[in-house]
Amino acid sequence: MNSKVTLVRLATVALGFNALVSHADDSLPSWNDGPAKQAIFEFVKATTTEGSPQFVPPEARIATFDQDGTLWVEHPMYTQVTYCFERVPALVKEKPELKNKEPFKTVLSGNREAMAKLSTNQLVEILVATLSGMSVEEFRAEAKKWLGEAKDARWKRPYTELTYQPMQELLRYLRANGYKTYIVTGGGQDFVREYAEQTYGIPPEQIVGTAGGTTYGYDKAGKPFLTKDPKLLLNDNNAGKPEGIHLMIGRRPVAAFGNSTGDRQMLEYTKAGDGARLAMLVLHDDAEREYAYGPAQGLPDTKVGTFTQALYDEAKKNGWMVISMKNDWKVIFPFESKL
Amino acid sequence: MNSKVTLVRLATVALGFNALVSHADDSLPSWNDGPAKQAIFEFVKATTTEGSPQFVPPEARIATFDQDGTLWVEHPMYTQVTYCFERVPALVKEKPELKNKEPFKTVLSGNREAMAKLSTNQLVEILVATLSGMSVEEFRAEAKKWLGEAKDARWKRPYTELTYQPMQELLRYLRANGYKTYIVTGGGQDFVREYAEQTYGIPPEQIVGTAGGTTYGYDKAGKPFLTKDPKLLLNDNNAGKPEGIHLMIGRRPVAAFGNSTGDRQMLEYTKAGDGARLAMLVLHDDAEREYAYGPAQGLPDTKVGTFTQALYDEAKKNGWMVISMKNDWKVIFPFESKL
Repeated sequence: MNSKVTLVRLATVALGFNALVSHADDSLPSWNDGPAKQAIFEFVKATTTEGSPQFVPPEARIATFDQDGTLWVEHPMYTQVTYCFERVPALVKEKPELKNKEPFKTVLSGNREAMAKLSTNQLVEILVATLSGMSVEEFRAEAKKWLGEAKDARWKRPYTELTYQPMQELLRYLRANGYKTYIVTGGGQDFVREYAEQTYGIPPEQIVGTAGGTTYGYDKAGKPFLTKDPKLLLNDNNAGKPEGIHLMIGRRPVAAFGNSTGDRQMLEYTKAGDGARLAMLVLHDDAEREYAYGPAQGLPDTKVGTFTQALYDEAKKNGWMVISMKNDWKVIFPFESKL
Repeated sequence: MNSKVTLVRLATVALGFNALVSHADDSLPSWNDGPAKQAIFEFVKATTTEGSPQFVPPEARIATFDQDGTLWVEHPMYTQVTYCFERVPALVKEKPELKNKEPFKTVLSGNREAMAKLSTNQLVEILVATLSGMSVEEFRAEAKKWLGEAKDARWKRPYTELTYQPMQELLRYLRANGYKTYIVTGGGQDFVREYAEQTYGIPPEQIVGTAGGTTYGYDKAGKPFLTKDPKLLLNDNNAGKPEGIHLMIGRRPVAAFGNSTGDRQMLEYTKAGDGARLAMLVLHDDAEREYAYGPAQGLPDTKVGTFTQALYDEAKKNGWMVISMKNDWKVIFPFESKL
């Protein structure tokens, strides 16, 4: 073999190796090439490359994610609300006086049409009754049991399998680059903590959610325990999201991800910081593979996970990226990519 | 050299090496040998040795520390209360109507005897007036400036230098063994966050403290910001400590450290978990090198950091370790060990 051939071979090997590295560098295989994926890569490069003018030191790399509709399915109803409805029979067994009392009577009837017409106050009454009054340990056991058994009606799978594969990749990609990933959810903090570590790799102390107080007390044997109170401490929606972030994290996020008007203030607050910031909203525009709702962009209006046209316009104006489920995501669920 | 001599030399080297390792293993050089130091070593060995029946997986290794009187000096007055008193002149400059109003008038007079006689309600009024009403950023700037300038009257040093060297070693030793260290303080969460990362290596998201709410709003340019509210969300003392731990961490600590009756429930809650648990209380019994107060064990009674005899007896009964500053600590402050 002469040296010229050797050089050519070496060059080929080198090129092949580069191509391989470049391919292996794609930590977001379920994302189609496009502006959303590109924005993520550019943001991570800018904030994690030493010497970059937008470099963020590792301890300040905070990324916050809404959960319902951002990390997993929220239609036709938030999973936790389904849990609360399905807890009502057990609750009535403990407290028979609720059997003929509204709104419990309607929930017991199983009449979905009537249940959909419950007022917000009635809904809150059901949530409070099923999410407080027990010890933290009892609640954890109940929630764990339900999560292990309950299945979504459309996919016939546990709710914890209905997470979005592209977002799972994004969580892992950010963590691999030194970001601490938090869930900042309007859902109940204790409920989400019960599965987030296993489902997303996010530990209990990195869950910020709607939270009630607890009361410290002792059982008959003198052993201390915490009882879940009906008192609301943090309504982690809308302005409550940045307020909750300050309370529980104490730092402004560098990146924030949501999907509805309840996430607007979290994204605003994130973008108001100095330097590179990433703010993204998932638009559910894929009725075939998941659901389609807005009412932004002429999508059907809905009460669950509302994404208004005003939010869409604000995103475009402020440089927030809108992720199109239909166009940006190759697959929706982890079980699809494993088929 | 014959082989017998070689063996002897090798044995000597080996023994020397072992002695060296054993010495290097002492991660708590400012602790005297005794039951407190031994309890720490045994606890860490039991909970971090794979295969140990008391092994705790890394993600569950949570250690919580009270701050005032446990990690740094709290006498003659909590540092944050001194901060609040010293903020009063600036507050009155902004709000001249407070100048002749009590309790601000007394604080402005500088009469220490009169200040010591202020009622709890008057004290709370001063705390609320100096810790709320401004933006989170304004508060941070004020606290940071004060911490950089203010000095303790006895040691003529910044308050952040008056941390306990043995506890600093303990924090580092636990972290080196996979423990996540939290501060759980009756002090203001935002105040402690301002210096804890630099002073103890504990980041803002690992500070649980007494916390007020914030309100999200916009400045004239439309930029969002958070204002500190006078509304109390969490009184992180006594039963508030385990309640705050559940709210902010969501896991039961495996080890907890305190020094006063306000820490009792945190230690109880920690010890009520399964497996190996470590609960320790610092007893201030060293008037010469720091302060002496109880009233446990006949030490002088005090309002700041009260350690009652009942708490002492409970500690002995429940297997909580009492750390004697006088007997267990070789040095008190980091600057002493550097002399």
